[in-house]
Amino acid sequence: MDLADGTFLMPGLVDLHIHAPQWPQLGTGLDLPLERWLFDYTFPLEARYADTGFAATVWDDLVPSLLAMGTTTAVYFSSNHLDATTALARACARHGQRALVGRVAMDHPTGTPEWYRDATASAGVEASAASIEAVTAVGSPLVEPVITPRFTPACTDALLEGLGELAAATGVRVQTHCAESDWHCGYALDRFGASDPVALDRFGLMLPRTVLAHSDHLTAGEMALAAGRGAGVAHCPLSNAYFANAVFGVRRALAAGVGVGLGSDIAGGARPGLLGVCQDAVTVSRMLEDGVDPALGAPQRGVPESRIDTVTAFWLATAGGAAVIDLPVGLIESGRAFDAVAVRADRPGGAVRLWEGLDDDARAFEKVVRLATADDISRVWVDGKSVKQ
Amino acid sequence: MDLADGTFLMPGLVDLHIHAPQWPQLGTGLDLPLERWLFDYTFPLEARYADTGFAATVWDDLVPSLLAMGTTTAVYFSSNHLDATTALARACARHGQRALVGRVAMDHPTGTPEWYRDATASAGVEASAASIEAVTAVGSPLVEPVITPRFTPACTDALLEGLGELAAATGVRVQTHCAESDWHCGYALDRFGASDPVALDRFGLMLPRTVLAHSDHLTAGEMALAAGRGAGVAHCPLSNAYFANAVFGVRRALAAGVGVGLGSDIAGGARPGLLGVCQDAVTVSRMLEDGVDPALGAPQRGVPESRIDTVTAFWLATAGGAAVIDLPVGLIESGRAFDAVAVRADRPGGAVRLWEGLDDDARAFEKVVRLATADDISRVWVDGKSVKQ
Repeated sequence: MDLADGTFLMPGLVDLHIHAPQWPQLGTGLDLPLERWLFDYTFPLEARYADTGFAATVWDDLVPSLLAMGTTTAVYFSSNHLDATTALARACARHGQRALVGRVAMDHPTGTPEWYRDATASAGVEASAASIEAVTAVGSPLVEPVITPRFTPACTDALLEGLGELAAATGVRVQTHCAESDWHCGYALDRFGASDPVALDRFGLMLPRTVLAHSDHLTAGEMALAAGRGAGVAHCPLSNAYFANAVFGVRRALAAGVGVGLGSDIAGGARPGLLGVCQDAVTVSRMLEDGVDPALGAPQRGVPESRIDTVTAFWLATAGGAAVIDLPVGLIESGRAFDAVAVRADRPGGAVRLWEGLDDDARAFEKVVRLATADDISRVWVDGKSVKQ
Repeated sequence: MDLADGTFLMPGLVDLHIHAPQWPQLGTGLDLPLERWLFDYTFPLEARYADTGFAATVWDDLVPSLLAMGTTTAVYFSSNHLDATTALARACARHGQRALVGRVAMDHPTGTPEWYRDATASAGVEASAASIEAVTAVGSPLVEPVITPRFTPACTDALLEGLGELAAATGVRVQTHCAESDWHCGYALDRFGASDPVALDRFGLMLPRTVLAHSDHLTAGEMALAAGRGAGVAHCPLSNAYFANAVFGVRRALAAGVGVGLGSDIAGGARPGLLGVCQDAVTVSRMLEDGVDPALGAPQRGVPESRIDTVTAFWLATAGGAAVIDLPVGLIESGRAFDAVAVRADRPGGAVRLWEGLDDDARAFEKVVRLATADDISRVWVDGKSVKQ
């Protein structure tokens, strides 16, 4: 491999939280709170993936688009449909993207609409088991299944229990949303008499390599629980502003021993490339540290020592995310797969500018992470194979 | 003019706050608070523009780059140098960008370094007057001068007074930073026994068409003052996270009758294109509304009714900004200059995707604003003349 001067090689990006079927609504519909956004915009769109032809069209745009942005590993929520989910796994295999692909299980009579749900809890567990087999049968070393209860409000106790048993029986990873918003947290307390993460743990869903998306509202005790179980967090900084009512405290979580990676949360987050998400992660950490309301005194406004820098954000987007899901990627070193991204800092009209005598390596790195767009990413490799040229 | 299907025509973007000489450090050095960032990173870089050759090199990259991003009107802080400032005005004229160009006045013995300041207050006023003449002498109908005291901590009373008199004598617009951070506000109170905006007003610098950058910490009374004077605000949402210690309340300001536009704040903000800044403006307004600290109860966390939507953000970036500086742009309508941007929503590998049967005009608009990059902007016009093809 020859890299021209002005081109930087970096580890491939690990996006821990993507809703694949929401790709067509990326950049729209962020005006409603989570629980209404789901019913008004998102469930109707996801229901369309019963049409496997529609699904195939979207997947064949989504997967190469994310590869072109440098997302070499993608952790996907698919739709509720078995066939569309298998098609997503096949698309990842065909385009060469490393991926965890999960059929979304959801059966709650009020938390989901009648026209988009598993008919019963046992049907949901059976379809999830069938999806594990179907994704595995795709036969790609890059693609694995993941057990995916949508979130507690969308699942009955019987479904959550059954999926916990499925995880125990198969050893397959789990992903779900956790303690995302005030509404979500209040809902869990009302229904379970326990917080959302404690309820997930009771159902056997907080396990090593479990991806807990968002988790903004975890208390110190709940962080200790997640750390003890070996579950990690997909921090989705941009969605923090739209749905979470608060910012996830990355530094608190890391200090508590919780694994943390980054997620774009397509389409709750309107920045699909994970380099942009790194900039957002730094930005929201600064807002958490300093606070937002100028009418409050500085000491009342924020949460001291919350900021992270660009290096930490990039570490979360690569090695941190890889550790959460225990895949041998996220660093360019012997013993790991060669998942990598080449970024041109000298493209005419490109987003990155380096200036002789001004930019050392550290500044060049920060510019690439903060400014590069998909058009500045010249090459991408997954498992040593070129997937963008 | 023929526009292909899949191409959207929008008014050109009006960026109310750009530090032109900071272009080479875009995307770096956001780890320090404002007052240290200036001395450690920014003043040393700006001092280099004593070398007019260096300045010309930067301007010839900056101006076409911003035009390519759709910034048809730019309000520039130049450096402290007369020649570099004139060269910036010439670069705008040559590349066809509508611009206000201001030589930065700064003379404070402790607020600026000895190696980068006006030697005396009267020298600063004289150089500012000379810069007005030099920028005017460039002879472009697109380019006008603007009187530019950096901010109160960088200027002696004599300089601020002299520039207020210069503004009164010439009718030339004024721009400065106002009430940006806790430190800035505290400094003004200590020095003037009055808040920063009240001090600016006493020096005759808060006038019709004055651009007050940031202004995050304005009280209701100070907003009424700005509205009464006809001064407007350059809201720089991304910098709010890094330097301001708080978020500017756009809706409060608009309700108080203050004119508001958007600024990228290059390089305090690391997103140079104003479409991206629209997304940031929506995002930070949501964080102001909901708050950031999950340990607080929801009612204590944020400032209700602070959110703005994408349409409002785009309005600020176009018509809102144009109104602040009273230029006949910002809308495509008879009686205004044709400053416009064409965005392709169908570029192969582009950032915007429209889906048949899913995306109506309102959704297409939101996708373009939230997702388009410079590479998706196919054409740009200023005053009817094509400046990107």
